[in-house]
Amino acid sequence: MKLIMAVIQDNDAGRLMEALSRKKFGLTRLASTGGFLRSGNTTLMIGVEDERVEELLGIIEKTCKPRKKIVTPLPAGPADAYVPYPVEVTVGGATLFILDVERFVKV
Amino acid sequence: MKLIMAVIQDNDAGRLMEALSRKKFGLTRLASTGGFLRSGNTTLMIGVEDERVEELLGIIEKTCKPRKKIVTPLPAGPADAYVPYPVEVTVGGATLFILDVERFVKV
Amino acid sequence: MKLIMAVIQDNDAGRLMEALSRKKFGLTRLASTGGFLRSGNTTLMIGVEDERVEELLGIIEKTCKPRKKIVTPLPAGPADAYVPYPVEVTVGGATLFILDVERFVKV
Ligand code: NI
Ligand code: NI
Ligand code: NI
Repeated sequence: MKLIMAVIQDNDAGRLMEALSRKKFGLTRLASTGGFLRSGNTTLMIGVEDERVEELLGIIEKTCKPRKKIVTPLPAGPADAYVPYPVEVTVGGATLFILDVERFVKV
Repeated sequence: MKLIMAVIQDNDAGRLMEALSRKKFGLTRLASTGGFLRSGNTTLMIGVEDERVEELLGIIEKTCKPRKKIVTPLPAGPADAYVPYPVEVTVGGATLFILDVERFVKV
Repeated sequence: MKLIMAVIQDNDAGRLMEALSRKKFGLTRLASTGGFLRSGNTTLMIGVEDERVEELLGIIEKTCKPRKKIVTPLPAGPADAYVPYPVEVTVGGATLFILDVERFVKV
């Protein structure tokens, strides 16, 4: 059994949790902020049998892989003083710590 | 030294934390949601000496073991259109990951 | 690679996170309450290469070491019935669990 501490972007959290629960992976979501990724991250604690680790990593890579996105920033000042233009940003990414579980207990 | 990541129901959190602190177990409570158990869970991070693991598991089992409970749901529609009746639900349960601590430091 | 779960006081969190990011340590902050330290704690999850563990511990010790502080409590009752006087309290402290990371993955 492994315990994976996965730090992902808030934006990807909903889709990843849905994908993982469809495949019956057990997880819980911890409230987290700052750090490994740009602001707005989520830490998932995922328990996984040794033989399903690669399958799990595949789902995380597919769902969270960094990608370009065009966003139009909101004007920071008066609307007529500044016309915002679209910019390309990178979203996604994941930082995973895979820990060995010495013992797994369900009550 | 072991570090136990324990996912329990919110409902059991207060009683378990009280029972553990009475026995001088060190713990901290992480905000968590969804996943391993029905909605409304809490993750406790508990540090424990190797020789007290069984004692700790005994307390968690006693406090969090799944049990039946009769609840009367609130009416979902207009009160006169629907008379709610009591239903039996299962509450409690715990999912525990026991990790080996390579080194424990107190500052 | 090690994963360090560090429980520190809320008061020290800002200064520690700043000191660690200046030295390029990767971390995320988990919302946590109660337990190992007096009320108001923060749990940091810090990933660190084996060869930088001592450097990291040095920073945490320097930033979070317990120290005396003089505080003047707010009056608990009517102001004229009770004149609060300054008291010395101990702040700071940290509890660290160092875990071995079996595998570290960045997506
Ligand atoms: Ni295993
Ligand atoms: Ni040990
Ligand atoms: Ni290592």
